[in-house]
Amino acid sequence: MIIYGDVGSGNCYKIKLLLSLLNIKHRWVHIDILKKDTQTADFLFLNPNGKIPVLVLDDGRVLSESNAILGYLAEETEFIATDSYMRAKKYQWMFFEQYSHEPFIAVARFINKYLGLPENRIADYHNLQPNGHRALSIMNQELAKSDYFIGSQLTIADIALYAYTHVADEGGFDLTLYPNIQAWCQRIRKYSGYVGMG
Amino acid sequence: MIIYGDVGSGNCYKIKLLLSLLNIKHRWVHIDILKKDTQTADFLFLNPNGKIPVLVLDDGRVLSESNAILGYLAEETEFIATDSYMRAKKYQWMFFEQYSHEPFIAVARFINKYLGLPENRIADYHNLQPNGHRALSIMNQELAKSDYFIGSQLTIADIALYAYTHVADEGGFDLTLYPNIQAWCQRIRKYSGYVGMG
Repeated sequence: MIIYGDVGSGNCYKIKLLLSLLNIKHRWVHIDILKKDTQTADFLFLNPNGKIPVLVLDDGRVLSESNAILGYLAEETEFIATDSYMRAKKYQWMFFEQYSHEPFIAVARFINKYLGLPENRIADYHNLQPNGHRALSIMNQELAKSDYFIGSQLTIADIALYAYTHVADEGGFDLTLYPNIQAWCQRIRKYSGYVGMG
Repeated sequence: MIIYGDVGSGNCYKIKLLLSLLNIKHRWVHIDILKKDTQTADFLFLNPNGKIPVLVLDDGRVLSESNAILGYLAEETEFIATDSYMRAKKYQWMFFEQYSHEPFIAVARFINKYLGLPENRIADYHNLQPNGHRALSIMNQELAKSDYFIGSQLTIADIALYAYTHVADEGGFDLTLYPNIQAWCQRIRKYSGYVGMG
């Protein structure tokens, strides 16, 4: 299989981390969004939405959306919940990640780290902070109840949330305010097959 | 089961439509976001993220995020894909809906229909239009290939996308520009058990 992505992007790193935990062979094709690699005709043929990551299977079938790719790769592995309600709960946290977390934390990080916090984006950057902290507070509260988002088991919900959370400081979010998140990050880093970002 | 929601919200209507197609008995508790019903202590206990819809099962277990609820309710019904890749593709479109569609089309509709397009939101409203049209173009292109998003079968991916798409005109999006979307909407309306919004 081929992954088109940038390992510095949290949405792509999610896939890299899961592939590493599962020890799945793959080819990684680097895509640079700042060079508009996602807007070429070839890339838009793969994903008309012009976003990374994209997974291309050996038979040519294509899948986009990071959390849908995680769901596909994790099927029948230890990283999914087997109970019907817990499976839905896992997707609940993955939709939370894409709607209430990534648009604030990943975008603040992008403005700061990739664009170098230019003058004309400073207001945007500051406006993203309250909702980013809101997402982190909700996560910190949930992690007071259990070691992972779906009980005592590492699932793709954790992998999805870990990707941008563990580098949230690059978007200006101080993780020392969230001790349960910090302990959870430490737990994930200890997993056999763990690989860092970038 | 109890659903907390507002049937005029697309994210809640998704659930209402699936429950109707499946003929599942439920109690609907109306929540008014303009009256801040989602920000009360009782509601935040159910969903710390303060968003509707929320599903509460008979045994008290709680599920939030509209598309995760759809996934839970549709398990073992005709509205899911059975093939592993198609199942992931279904989630691909549901993540597309929450990330690349809803934040533009639903928000433009909210500003126009719920808030009455106030002076201080007109710029926001106009800024949402290009990305909303982008999402509709991608959908229209996909629907040139098949009757539904997952081949010839109505799935929860269609239900998720239909909710805000069929009322996109209330957010200023002219659907006559997208004939494949219009034909798809007609197909969905013909389903036995179909129920309208609101």
